[in-house]
Parts: sequence; C-alpha cells; structure tokens
Amino acid sequence: DLPFSLFAGPCAMESRDHTLFMAEAIKKITDKLGISFVYKTSFDKANRTSMSSERGVGLHEALPVFQAVKDTFGVPVLTDIHLPDQCAVVGEVVDVLQIPAFLCRQTDLLIAAAKTGRVIKIKKGQFLSPSDMKNVAQKVLDAGNPRVLLTERGASFGYNTLVSDFRGLPTMARDTGLPIIFDATHSVQQPGGQGATSGGQREMVPTLSRAAIAVGVAGIFAETHQDPASAPSDGPNMIPLEYLETYLSELQDIDRIAKSRKNLHFFSE
Amino acid sequence: DLPFSLFAGPCAMESRDHTLFMAEAIKKITDKLGISFVYKTSFDKANRTSMSSERGVGLHEALPVFQAVKDTFGVPVLTDIHLPDQCAVVGEVVDVLQIPAFLCRQTDLLIAAAKTGRVIKIKKGQFLSPSDMKNVAQKVLDAGNPRVLLTERGASFGYNTLVSDFRGLPTMARDTGLPIIFDATHSVQQPGGQGATSGGQREMVPTLSRAAIAVGVAGIFAETHQDPASAPSDGPNMIPLEYLETYLSELQDIDRIAKSRKNLHFFSE
Amino acid sequence: DLPFSLFAGPCAMESRDHTLFMAEAIKKITDKLGISFVYKTSFDKANRTSMSSERGVGLHEALPVFQAVKDTFGVPVLTDIHLPDQCAVVGEVVDVLQIPAFLCRQTDLLIAAAKTGRVIKIKKGQFLSPSDMKNVAQKVLDAGNPRVLLTERGASFGYNTLVSDFRGLPTMARDTGLPIIFDATHSVQQPGGQGATSGGQREMVPTLSRAAIAVGVAGIFAETHQDPASAPSDGPNMIPLEYLETYLSELQDIDRIAKSRKNLHFFSE
Amino acid sequence: DLPFSLFAGPCAMESRDHTLFMAEAIKKITDKLGISFVYKTSFDKANRTSMSSERGVGLHEALPVFQAVKDTFGVPVLTDIHLPDQCAVVGEVVDVLQIPAFLCRQTDLLIAAAKTGRVIKIKKGQFLSPSDMKNVAQKVLDAGNPRVLLTERGASFGYNTLVSDFRGLPTMARDTGLPIIFDATHSVQQPGGQGATSGGQREMVPTLSRAAIAVGVAGIFAETHQDPASAPSDGPNMIPLEYLETYLSELQDIDRIAKSRKNLHFFSE
Repeated sequence: DLPFSLFAGPCAMESRDHTLFMAEAIKKITDKLGISFVYKTSFDKANRTSMSSERGVGLHEALPVFQAVKDTFGVPVLTDIHLPDQCAVVGEVVDVLQIPAFLCRQTDLLIAAAKTGRVIKIKKGQFLSPSDMKNVAQKVLDAGNPRVLLTERGASFGYNTLVSDFRGLPTMARDTGLPIIFDATHSVQQPGGQGATSGGQREMVPTLSRAAIAVGVAGIFAETHQDPASAPSDGPNMIPLEYLETYLSELQDIDRIAKSRKNLHFFSE
Repeated sequence: DLPFSLFAGPCAMESRDHTLFMAEAIKKITDKLGISFVYKTSFDKANRTSMSSERGVGLHEALPVFQAVKDTFGVPVLTDIHLPDQCAVVGEVVDVLQIPAFLCRQTDLLIAAAKTGRVIKIKKGQFLSPSDMKNVAQKVLDAGNPRVLLTERGASFGYNTLVSDFRGLPTMARDTGLPIIFDATHSVQQPGGQGATSGGQREMVPTLSRAAIAVGVAGIFAETHQDPASAPSDGPNMIPLEYLETYLSELQDIDRIAKSRKNLHFFSE
Repeated sequence: DLPFSLFAGPCAMESRDHTLFMAEAIKKITDKLGISFVYKTSFDKANRTSMSSERGVGLHEALPVFQAVKDTFGVPVLTDIHLPDQCAVVGEVVDVLQIPAFLCRQTDLLIAAAKTGRVIKIKKGQFLSPSDMKNVAQKVLDAGNPRVLLTERGASFGYNTLVSDFRGLPTMARDTGLPIIFDATHSVQQPGGQGATSGGQREMVPTLSRAAIAVGVAGIFAETHQDPASAPSDGPNMIPLEYLETYLSELQDIDRIAKSRKNLHFFSE
Repeated sequence: DLPFSLFAGPCAMESRDHTLFMAEAIKKITDKLGISFVYKTSFDKANRTSMSSERGVGLHEALPVFQAVKDTFGVPVLTDIHLPDQCAVVGEVVDVLQIPAFLCRQTDLLIAAAKTGRVIKIKKGQFLSPSDMKNVAQKVLDAGNPRVLLTERGASFGYNTLVSDFRGLPTMARDTGLPIIFDATHSVQQPGGQGATSGGQREMVPTLSRAAIAVGVAGIFAETHQDPASAPSDGPNMIPLEYLETYLSELQDIDRIAKSRKNLHFFSE
C-alpha cells in the first residue's frame, strides 16, 4: 500500500535534447510532490494505424539517450519492445521492459523479456478479460522472473472505442498478487477513430485516473508532452506538461485516503 | 459540490414491519455519518427475468407503508413506477419517482411522472450512451419539471454483463447540468446470468462506488438488506446491512477530497 | 420449414390514404412473389429519442384504418403496443401484437397481450442475450397463449451501434421451438447516432437479410416507404418501396436453398 | 464472383504422416465437390492462452512437410508467421503467409511478409473495426505486394466471447477491393473461456458459415480434424473431418445462388 508510482514521458522519443528536457521537467515535478518516477518513451512505434505515421528514432539511436537520462537524473527508464531479439540488448540499459497490449500473448516475446531479469510491465490486451491475465503473467513467472507489473489500458467496446472496466484492477491483483498500473492516457484512445490515425479523449484522463486511484493502484502510466499538438504520435490523448503537477497532486490526495481505508473484501463472502 | 446523498433500502418491499426496520436501521447509520438519506424500495418488480420470480406487495398496500416511513422517521422515500397512470397516485405520497432503465425512453411515463412535480430520478438505459441522456432528461424538463436526477447503472457489454463507464458521469453532468447518481448495486448485476434469475458481483460494489465517488457524484444509490440471501430479489448484489456503515464511511473520506479539488477541465482545450 | 413470411410497412401510420396505398403496393409485390404478408405500421412512437420527434396518429384514429386494410385487401395487420390497457382494444382489430424491444421484460404488458389470444410478436431487447428470451416467451405461454413469435433486432455493441449476432437465431429456436423473425431494418439502426434522432445504415439491410435467411428464419420484418427521406420516423433505415421486389426476390432464392438443406446439428455432439 | 475457395486443415501440424493424411482426405472431398483448396496448418502456436499448452513442431521440421504436401497432392499450403525474420524462409516453400489477428498491426511483420511476394492473408484483429483494415492492407500494398486477402474472424464482444459482424464483409470489400475470407472456426472461439485454454461453439460453425456465404465471400477458412477431441489445440471449434463434405456441399448451394444475384447497392444512394 505504498503511494502510487508514476511512469511518464512522451509517447515517442524525438531527440536527445527533447528527451533530457522532458525527463528533467517531469523529475522536477515528481521530486516536488515526492512521487517515485520512471521515464517512459518509445524508440519505435511498431504498430501504427497506417504507414503514413512516423515510426521513431530506432533502437540504436535510443539506447545512449536512455543511458543519458539515467546518468543525468538518476531516473529509471521504461520502453516497449516488440520482438524477442530486441529484449537482451534493450535490457542492458532499460530498467522496465514493456510488453505492448497487442503482443501480450506472444510467448516468445514474454520469455525473452523475462530472461533479461528486468522488470516486465505487461499491458492487458484490449481483447482479453482481466482474468485472462493470470495466464499471461505466468509465462514470465515461469521463465524465472518474478518482477512483473500488469497494466490496464482499456477493453474493446464496440468499434473505435475502449472502456475502462475498474472491476479489472482488483481482479488482476487478486488473481496474481502483482502490482497493477493504470494507463491513464491510452485508456482514452479511440483506436482508428480519425481514419488513418487514432483519436483520443484527453479531457477524460483526470476522470479515469481519479477512479483508478480511488480503487487502488500501484502506479499511474501517463504520456505527457510540452506541446501535444506537435507530437509525432498520440497527441490527442497526452497530458500537456503544464498541467501535470496539478493532475498528480489531485491524485495524491485521493491516493492517501484510498490506501488508508481497507477495501471491503468481506462483501464477497 | 455538496457531500453525496444516499438512496438506499431493500430492492423489494417485503412488509410494513420489515420496511420500518430497514428504514430505521439505515437512518441510524446515515444520521451518525451525517449523510442525507432517501429510503428506496419497490412495490412491484414489473420486469423480472422470469415469471417464477416474485412481483411484490403492490401499489395500494405499499403507499401507507411509504407514508409511515415518512411520518415515523422524517425520511423522504423513493420508488420506481412502470406505467403512466401510476404516477399521480404514487406522487401523492412518494418524494422521488424513479424511471426504470428499460423504460427511460417511454415518453408518456416520463411526462406523467414529471407532472406530479416530484423529483424524477431517471436510470440510464443499458442500451444508451451517456450523451443520449440529454434527450431523455429534456422530456421531463419540457413537461415543466426541473427536478431531475440522472443515474448511471451500467451499459451492456457483451451478454449477461454490464460495464460501468465512468466517462459517462461527467458527460451527463456537462450535457445537462443535472445531479448524477451512481447506482452501485445494479451496476454489478449480471442480467440473466443465472438462467431464470440475474446474478451479481457484490464484491465489486465497493470498487465501483469508490471510483464513482472519486470522479464526483451527487449521490449513491445502493440496495441493502439485513440478509440478502433471503431477499425476494437482487440478493446477489445487495449490500449486507452490517457492512453499510463501513462502506459509507470509506466513501465519505474519498468524497471530501474529491470535491475539494477541481477536476481538470482545461485538458479538453 | 415453410418459406419466409414478410412483416412490412411504413414505420409510422401517416394517414388512411397512405396506409391503403402502402398496403396495396406491398401486397401486389408479395402476391406476385408468393410471399405471405402481414402489414405493419405503428399508431404511436412511444419511445422516440427526443420530444421534438413526431408521435403518431394515435390508437383511436388508427384502428379503423387497420380494419380497412384487412377489409380491402384481406391482409392481416401488425402493430406495436406499449401499455397493458391498450392490448384488449387493439386486439379486437389487429392480428399480431408486437412487444417493443425496450418493453420485452414488462410482465404486465406481456400478459395483457397474451390474453387477447392474438399472435404475440416479441422483439428481443438490445440488452438481452438470445438465451434470455426463453424466460420472456414463457411469460406469454404461461398466460395461455402459445402463438408467440420471437424477433432478433440487434444487440448493443458499444454506444450508438447494434450488432446482429446470428448465433442468436438457432439459439432462440432451439430454446423455445418458436418461429424466429429477423427485423432487417431496425437491426441497422444507429440509436441516438444523429444527436436528437437515430441514424441507420440502410445499405446494410440486404447484407444482414441474406445472412438471416441463409441461417434460416420463419420471417423477415422490414419497414418500407415510397419516400423514406420524407417519412416521420426511421427514414435512414427503411427500404425504398421501389426496391422491395428485388430485395425479396433475392431472399426467396436463398431461402429455398437454405431450407432444402438440413443445418448440421451433429456438430454439437 | 468465382465460387468460394477453401483454406482448411488441422490447427497445428502434428506429424508428417498426419499432415499427409489430412491433406489427402480434404483434397478428396474438395476434388469431388470442385472446390479450390489450400492446405492450412501451423508450425508454432505462438500466442497460446497459457504456457501449459503445446507449441508445435517448429519451423524447420515443418517446411519439408509443407513441401511434401505440395509435391504429393499439388495442393498449395498456408501457414501463419509471427516474426519478421521468419517470413523469407517460410516464403520459400509456403504459398500463403497468414498474419495472425493479434499481429495485424505489426508493420515490420507485414512488410517482411509482403516482400516474399507470396499471397498475404491478414486476419482482422478482434480489436479493430472493419474500416480499420484498409490501413492494415495498405502496409502490404505499399511494400509492393498486391496479393492480399483479408479475413474476418470475429470482434471482441464483452469478455471471452466474439461476435461476427457481417456488415464487415462488404465494408472491407468496398474499402479495399480485396478478396474477403470468412474464418468459420475461429469466429466461434471463446477466448480464455475455459480458464487456461479457449473454448468454442463448434455447433455454430455451420450457422455463421451460411451467413457469410450468403453475404458473399471469396473463401472460407475452416480448421478440421479427424478427431478434434484429441487435437493439440482448438479442439472445441474444429469441424470433425467426417462432416466436412456435407458442410461444404451446403455452402456451395448457397454460394451459387448468392453470387448469381447482385447485392442491392442502390440502397445506400
């Protein structure tokens, strides 16, 4: 029942300078608020809606930048991996390897990630029920790595829309005993909702985040950018950097109360 | 931004004695906690899953009992109505007329309810989107009654399951300016989930209630019973009376914090 | 395994002249094709999306017009009823009483309809699973009326969209032994999809109708109008009258083949 | 508007002998019926529900067996690939490379598959709308390979269930001009529905297949086995080999009629 951690950063790595700028800016806020912080960004957007979308800087350009974030600010870093043979090399630098939602059932990727010994953060597929995730987590555990985080990021609800089912948070926690993270910005995506790109309902990020914190989570994942409209991806759902502190501070207040009161488990007896 | 109100009571009226027992028991708790309380119970279960389920005591037996609750405890009462011609007679005694979710688009029922001048609490149909509710509310407003409450009680999600979409709470509030109530116990129903009756996930009531309170609601609707297993309806989702105080007290703590912090509306700019 | 019957007509009764015009036009087509025909129209649209939508001519104006259709063309007629006390008077004239989808669990309405002795056509609620319909049908059967038809008209699929689950047709048939009707034009509705009115995907009517006929149904329900764009309701999904013959003729060809071949029930062994 | 083709075989390759046995058995049936046939089987089940499920014989053992099927019976073969670096080697032998549904947005996999010049059959993700598939197909087309098939295999519908939305077939055909295949056996899967394995509704395969054929498809994909109960994967939804001929023969009858009649496109005007 520790305070929630924050996994945050821009959706895609843009440059060394931008990365250091964002990491410093977020760290300043989380230091002020006393929130544990992991810097997140992607080196490759491997499953964009269409070919006309940008891909990213690539693995080899990204690793030294991740190292620089760690060295400069002492902040651990997270990135998502897409292929088994990326895991070992990414794992040399990156502290948390994230399994994308579409890939959360790819056994070889889960095992290769597990074998790095790094923390493995698995996003729940939009096509899975919360209770399916125990089998997914078990693939990593069986590969000898107990450091697993599970992430809720919305379930398919009709077409081009996701819904956040908050019953899933305690279900996954109870089934696995693992920490549960709420992905606040992908949960408001509208996949394919703008034709060749995905839309998003940024205005719903605080609403869903409050709900998740009140239910009780180990962490919040949130993409942020100093100018979302100019970001190469996920602009419609990222949190503008200027509002990040207010956003987090609200959640801290709710988190303190939520974790000081025991959830009523006897209801199920 | 007042503290949340409570609409609570057993799903179905069982007898005069049981009604007075339940009303007194709940009032004692809400008085202690300082929560505004409206007693809820149904005189007729008009849309049971199957014919073998019990219906209820009926309108004419129920009205004097509602009056007794008001006279004895000074507690306002709520019940659901199913036909236009029930509205006037029910409205003579009952303070809040509730429109069932399946019936929330029946224009004549909405207008007949509106014309009583009583508070009209409309449950959002499981088949409607949050933004559809502004048209529903408008039917009551156009009939000259501005005292309308809107209630979220889950949306259809595949078969025999509902999902609570917490984006709906601010959407309905913003669209209509009306108070929004979260129905904590029907939101965990599993309609038809037990063949000839509906199932329920009582253990999820605190989880969804915390989420709703953190998002911000004007009230919580929750059915409760001193012995849910013996109740004539909705046993699988009612809150056992013995846990009601703890349940409400947790929600109060979150409610105070949630309402002291402004939700971040600038995100949508 | 008789050829499919047709339940067709304009969504709302507009006038005596228009009703007779439509009934004659459809009858001419169905006589030519050898299709059994029931004329459908509504005297009241009791659950419109918003108050600004038209309601209809009303019960008392409609009944003599229904009688005129029967007298003039020898065609049985169908209309939907919304309140228990409408059933007896409607049942004096109308051959098939239709229970609207939203009202399919209202026990009193089902029983009052059953007691007329007329054929009762029940639309499956968008919020119900196919296997829930056996309990619904049983309410009519228990009231002493075995003449029940069940209708598929789409299930809620996210917001403002329906999906036709064709597994539901054999499921309902197997569970109840009752004839199953496919409602081809409401299944393409987009409820609330145009803000204050419902949208529709008329272009999908032939697609879904072909699928239903190939699976095997006792009848097709389809709303039609000589000028859908000017119709008071459901314009976006009604079949233009000029295409009705081609539409039906295609379905007849598939129906003949579908019913000449036994569906493979041994698969479930 | 050619007659439908068949993509069929056991879910997983079991052995050389079993593969040749199945290929011969199916070819005998399709030759008799005059159906174009592609043999399907998987060398690796890369995304099983849990680790306790079998994986498969592996790529290097499988390729000579695929070659033997081609050499012995003159039947083209299809298999699914999971990683970009598998594509070139698989493409040396296998005629149709299938992109699994979970992986249908992985750009590198689509491009690597495209570059083999083989036919690329893409399964629509359970989390995508039909209109999202034009962007997916475009990735292969842009890589210089115009030989693309799109496959419908069900959309997420609540948890642990899929629904087949037959509006998707003409939508994808109209959007892309590509041939559309209906996957009859995966469409009845119940993902994760048996805890550590997926369930299935085999009895619904003929129902959904009839619907798809009546709507109009270029091909049917169906897994089959001489003894599904003993198969290493997907037993609950595969067609028993002994019923395959009857199943196909029914579909042929409907296919002939469906393709002889023009679908009514003028409805959308």
